Amino acid sequence: MKAHVWVMPKRTVLDPQGQTIQHTLAGLGYAEVKDVRQGKFFVLDLGGWTREEAQGQLERISKDVLTNPVIEEYRFEIID
Amino acid sequence: MKAHVWVMPKRTVLDPQGQTIQHTLAGLGYAEVKDVRQGKFFVLDLGGWTREEAQGQLERISKDVLTNPVIEEYRFEIID
Repeated sequence: MKAHVWVMPKRTVLDPQGQTIQHTLAGLGYAEVKDVRQGKFFVLDLGGWTREEAQGQLERISKDVLTNPVIEEYRFEIID
Repeated sequence: MKAHVWVMPKRTVLDPQGQTIQHTLAGLGYAEVKDVRQGKFFVLDLGGWTREEAQGQLERISKDVLTNPVIEEYRFEIID
C-alpha cells in the first residue's frame, strides 16, 4: 500500500519560491504562466496497516510531521 | 487552465530528505512507514494557450526550469 501526500502553502501565505519561478518563466518568454505555487509531494510505502488504520495514521503523520500547520495545508490519498 | 507538475528524485538517486522523514517516523512509532520519497509539486495558472500549446510548453517548462534532469524526473497534468 502507498500513500501520496501533498503539502502546499496556504492560499493566504506568500510563496516566494513559486513567485521566483513565475518571474523566471516570464523572463524566459512564458508570460502565459500567470501564477506558480510550489509545494511538497511525498510518496510513502506502507506495510502492516489496514486501509482504515492507514487513513487515521496518515491524517496524524500529515498533520504532525509533514505539515507546518501555521503556513501549510495538506491532503493525502491512499493507493491500492 | 491549470497545470500540476510533480518533480521527484529519480529512483536511482538517494533521497536524504525522504530518508530523514522515514527515520523520524520510525522513531515516533510509525514503523509501518517503510519508505518515504520527497519531491516537489507545482500548481501553475495558465492563460492564453490552447490545450495543445500548453502540452508542448509544459513539457519544456518542466524539463528546462522545474527539473534537474541529472537527478530528478517529472510528470505533469493539464486541468480543465
